[in-house]
Amino acid sequence: MSASPNDSTEETTAVFPPTYIVIQFSRHIRTTALVWLVDKICGKRLDGGAELLVRKQPHHDGEGLTLHVSASKIKFLEVAEELELRKRDKCGLIREFTVSQLDDFLEEGMHVDDLLTTAEKQYIVRHELENIRALKEDDQVPGYPAFRLYEGQSIVQVCLHWKLLDRMYPLHDQEALGKLGMKWYWALFRKQPFEEIRLYFGEAVALYFTFLGFYTTSLLVPMVLGFLQLFLSSESIAFFCVFNVLWVTVFLEVWKRKCSELAFTWGTIGMTSLDEPRPNYHGVMGIDVVTGRYQPQFPRWKTNARLYCASLPIVLLCMVGAFFVMLASFWAEEMIIHMKKLHGLEAGGLLVLMPSILYSAVVFIMNCYYRKLATFLTEWENHRTQSQFDRHRVTKLVLFEFVNNFMSLFYIAFYIQDMEMLKNQLTVMLIIFQAINNFQEAILPLLIKCYSKKVTKALKFDAILGNKDNEGSSYIRKRRPTLIHEKDSVIPDHIPALEPDDPRIELAIAEGEMENYEGTYDDYLEIFIQFGYVFLFSSVYPMAALWAVVNNILEIRADAFKLCCLYQRPMAKRVKDTGAWQRAFEAVGAMSIMTNCGLLCMSPQLRRLAPSLTSVEWVLLFVVLEHMLLGIRHILHLVIPDRPEWVRVALARINHQSKQALKNERTIKNRRHLFRRYNTVHASLNHND
Amino acid sequence: MSASPNDSTEETTAVFPPTYIVIQFSRHIRTTALVWLVDKICGKRLDGGAELLVRKQPHHDGEGLTLHVSASKIKFLEVAEELELRKRDKCGLIREFTVSQLDDFLEEGMHVDDLLTTAEKQYIVRHELENIRALKEDDQVPGYPAFRLYEGQSIVQVCLHWKLLDRMYPLHDQEALGKLGMKWYWALFRKQPFEEIRLYFGEAVALYFTFLGFYTTSLLVPMVLGFLQLFLSSESIAFFCVFNVLWVTVFLEVWKRKCSELAFTWGTIGMTSLDEPRPNYHGVMGIDVVTGRYQPQFPRWKTNARLYCASLPIVLLCMVGAFFVMLASFWAEEMIIHMKKLHGLEAGGLLVLMPSILYSAVVFIMNCYYRKLATFLTEWENHRTQSQFDRHRVTKLVLFEFVNNFMSLFYIAFYIQDMEMLKNQLTVMLIIFQAINNFQEAILPLLIKCYSKKVTKALKFDAILGNKDNEGSSYIRKRRPTLIHEKDSVIPDHIPALEPDDPRIELAIAEGEMENYEGTYDDYLEIFIQFGYVFLFSSVYPMAALWAVVNNILEIRADAFKLCCLYQRPMAKRVKDTGAWQRAFEAVGAMSIMTNCGLLCMSPQLRRLAPSLTSVEWVLLFVVLEHMLLGIRHILHLVIPDRPEWVRVALARINHQSKQALKNERTIKNRRHLFRRYNTVHASLNHND
Repeated sequence: MSASPNDSTEETTAVFPPTYIVIQFSRHIRTTALVWLVDKICGKRLDGGAELLVRKQPHHDGEGLTLHVSASKIKFLEVAEELELRKRDKCGLIREFTVSQLDDFLEEGMHVDDLLTTAEKQYIVRHELENIRALKEDDQVPGYPAFRLYEGQSIVQVCLHWKLLDRMYPLHDQEALGKLGMKWYWALFRKQPFEEIRLYFGEAVALYFTFLGFYTTSLLVPMVLGFLQLFLSSESIAFFCVFNVLWVTVFLEVWKRKCSELAFTWGTIGMTSLDEPRPNYHGVMGIDVVTGRYQPQFPRWKTNARLYCASLPIVLLCMVGAFFVMLASFWAEEMIIHMKKLHGLEAGGLLVLMPSILYSAVVFIMNCYYRKLATFLTEWENHRTQSQFDRHRVTKLVLFEFVNNFMSLFYIAFYIQDMEMLKNQLTVMLIIFQAINNFQEAILPLLIKCYSKKVTKALKFDAILGNKDNEGSSYIRKRRPTLIHEKDSVIPDHIPALEPDDPRIELAIAEGEMENYEGTYDDYLEIFIQFGYVFLFSSVYPMAALWAVVNNILEIRADAFKLCCLYQRPMAKRVKDTGAWQRAFEAVGAMSIMTNCGLLCMSPQLRRLAPSLTSVEWVLLFVVLEHMLLGIRHILHLVIPDRPEWVRVALARINHQSKQALKNERTIKNRRHLFRRYNTVHASLNHND
Repeated sequence: MSASPNDSTEETTAVFPPTYIVIQFSRHIRTTALVWLVDKICGKRLDGGAELLVRKQPHHDGEGLTLHVSASKIKFLEVAEELELRKRDKCGLIREFTVSQLDDFLEEGMHVDDLLTTAEKQYIVRHELENIRALKEDDQVPGYPAFRLYEGQSIVQVCLHWKLLDRMYPLHDQEALGKLGMKWYWALFRKQPFEEIRLYFGEAVALYFTFLGFYTTSLLVPMVLGFLQLFLSSESIAFFCVFNVLWVTVFLEVWKRKCSELAFTWGTIGMTSLDEPRPNYHGVMGIDVVTGRYQPQFPRWKTNARLYCASLPIVLLCMVGAFFVMLASFWAEEMIIHMKKLHGLEAGGLLVLMPSILYSAVVFIMNCYYRKLATFLTEWENHRTQSQFDRHRVTKLVLFEFVNNFMSLFYIAFYIQDMEMLKNQLTVMLIIFQAINNFQEAILPLLIKCYSKKVTKALKFDAILGNKDNEGSSYIRKRRPTLIHEKDSVIPDHIPALEPDDPRIELAIAEGEMENYEGTYDDYLEIFIQFGYVFLFSSVYPMAALWAVVNNILEIRADAFKLCCLYQRPMAKRVKDTGAWQRAFEAVGAMSIMTNCGLLCMSPQLRRLAPSLTSVEWVLLFVVLEHMLLGIRHILHLVIPDRPEWVRVALARINHQSKQALKNERTIKNRRHLFRRYNTVHASLNHND
């Protein structure tokens, strides 16, 4: 029983608490390394262990070890305080959880086990796993002299990196999931159960769905305005368009407020990026100025230099490249139409569509490669924290997606100036593409899953993308030796095993084979593109908002279904806002002012209203209008506070209370200290005089 | 000796430390109130006193009591910690001063008295004075049943408000001042001694001079560019102009960084506006949600409603009014020129100047009244903290000054489109007005002071402004009863007196009669207006920067002289940035992009370069250019971090250290606590199962 985690908890060995994380070891891992790792996971904190509880799954030949990981009550509460989780106390105040005030957080009749949500517990277990850090004596992974470690490095991350661990995933809770599903994807017109989503999937996923819900509700206003526009004269179109554009600004500002409310209620508002370095962060080993720990050091200016001198030009080049591909497609289309006229070809109907189809295919392929490039570049820039990494990667991707998705529309609107074509294009994008997308995301995988697991693998939609799961690590993979041809490891007997009839065993196997949820990037991107279609050209295509609303109502349920039934349960991720996306949406918001003013200015119906103005005056009129709108946008941005009053007051109160406590404590101490000291000091002053 | 502050400091009664603040009581204050106040100032903290040291000045009949206030060493150190002053420790790290680590802050051979600067000590004394708060039993000022107090109200502020105290001011230190002067206003081309300025005048004044110095240095680039432009063709003018405009953005961003460096070095970076309410803040008494104290409560929405529904329209109306006054002056000028032509008047030379002169006079008078209005409105809006009050007042004033100072130039540039006139106007403003201004500020008062003190009062420049000192309180004055006709108060004997030959007595009398330095508002305004003249129209008048530099070199010395020799020593004020001014400068920076693009677009020389473009295309070209510049500005704004790397690292380190200390302390406690608790909890869990 050397792996027993806590001397005082004999009972825990009898009833193993729910599994929060499943770890699959590589079948080829050397036994010394395996034993060492398991010891680290269950070992005492003083010995550098994580003090977690483990059970192995009964195993067969040719399989690696599968470990179920959980933790004791003590551990959960302790780490909850360490991570500065915020919880609601009995008085309804949300404040940092502390163990010494445990009773304040337990409402009447509440069991201590229910204090933390399953997502929080799973987050805590993962945090503890990833926080197992190499000690001074751990200079390498035992059995692998090539896998060097530095003091303080995250061992689990290293093992995942070198493929000693195959995967690490949380288990679904079928009962809770069933309940959640009934309230969520089976209830088309009911409010989404945000709190339950957060409790089950964590803050990042809950924030995405809250955003999607909030955005869809907000779209009702442009939708109504769009309807009105259909029946109105062209002057009122201009008015509604202006209103529409300001609405976007208000929507984004209000969302920021809502976001900070959520972050406060969820207790993530105080999160900073002053975090531990990402596992892939590398550099010369040295003493960290901030923490004083021995950690890899990489000068910031080098990251910046790489960012601005290499990545930025490359990204710009790619954008220009994508732009020319788009031009080429337009040019080809024109050529074909011209040839058709010239030669009077009848069968040219399909031929005319060729460039569009070809262009779509090229964009798809470009996107795949560009994703890899963006991840590689961001990896190479070597950002220190995960949040920096995410922000820079998302920014790169969004810039490129912007060109691919919107440039052709800009070209049609402002170069070709064919409003009918623009409308058609928007209709196709909003209705057909979105429908296909939803089908791909939810219905296709479901169908495939229903019919055959084997077919799934062959047809898996992104098979053409190659090894999508690993796209982020292609840069590292080169340096990674392969373990494939080593012999299987021996699984030691001293690790306690689960009962062979434990239902968790089957679940762990089934879910281990499910696809991994990549994070919310693709989901946000979809909303982002739709947002652009709806607002950038709202003055020529007011119906866009309607199609967007219809799509989003379906999208919410499709995404929900996808998450609950088609993917591995994602690791809970704590976030406080939508990060780089907020900026991306704001940028499109600002751009929509320009495009809509431009479109209105070009509108011949409007022009007819003021025949006495010269062309230059007419253009200047819209330039002034646009500047006024941009000015109003800026003022709204300044005037609407980012945090609602109650959040500010609540934060101020928490801050005040903790400061006051610290001060009171110190005052008495200081006075004593000073009187003692002062008498000497003052005496010496008099001597000096 | 009931006023003796500290039992253990018998010595302090022998040697009275330097006077930091002088308080002049009204000669009409009732004796009970006077005794009560003095007791509050010297009383024990437990009795609601400030524990300060006082000495009265020997007094004559018909004079009020004049009190010299100082504090003991203990007091200074204690309050320094309470106020979270940051000081540089022995290792060069700037961190919060704590008494228990006093030795860490004392460098080799440093006396404990030199740890705090005189400005800091004076700030501490003032803070303690203003922090004397009414206790529960103090429901009124003794002797004045009409002067109600609420628990926790600042007594000194109330007494100043009701004119029971005439004034409160710090004393100059003639020796230090002499040394400072030699290095500062007598050394025309040397670097300003910023650190000494800060030590003597406090952070707000030091920041102003740092800004002025930094701005002047930065102006050298536009100055050189301006010179080059004189000898170049019109295409290159466009290029230089673009460069100029971007330079402004970079300048403001770099200033923000510099500002945060200064704030960090000065230890003010962590200042928040979570402060005590301003003395004039009023409302229904209630429990404050943040502090839990019994304080006046005024709903935020009411402030906002007043701000947006009353103040904003009034300010806009005033701006429109000022605009029409300007139009009227142009119209009158035109009329006179027209009449002159019509009637062939010869003597019309002076007559033509009349509207300009009249306009200047009207603007001057309007400004005076508008200032009162702005202060009244801001007072009425009832902002809670001083910083909010200042920000809103400055914003109102700047908006109006903008119309008065720049609108006529806009009118000339874009409506009359007479570039020669614009140039002349700018020259007059930049050379003549600035010269007059400097003369008024420094030389005139000096001359007057030299010749006669009596003449001073008669000629005092802002006599026409009425009671300028009190302009802020006109709203309150109405509700204030007058004390004038009460009989003189009797000054109790138990207050210890200064030696009759103490040099401080004469100083206190002399400086009591000096004019009060109103704060940095007028000084910033001067730079702001100049900044507008230089950058808004830099493409037609590139020489502006030269004149600005010449003026600023003089201005620095004139302001320095004014502060050192002509005014009462200002109260040290701690600031962390230039507040509302940063935004005002940024707004003008953005506007300068628009105006310069407009001017270039209108330039006939440039137009000749591209005769093939239609007018509309030409305008669109500049619209695109302008948007690109605005875009670049925005990107620069995002990309240049507000705080330099080293400041961020240093702040992160401080944060990390204090968190770590707290955590370590807690961890041991928690574990014990939890083990005790856990055993019960776990037992009960098993029972439940």
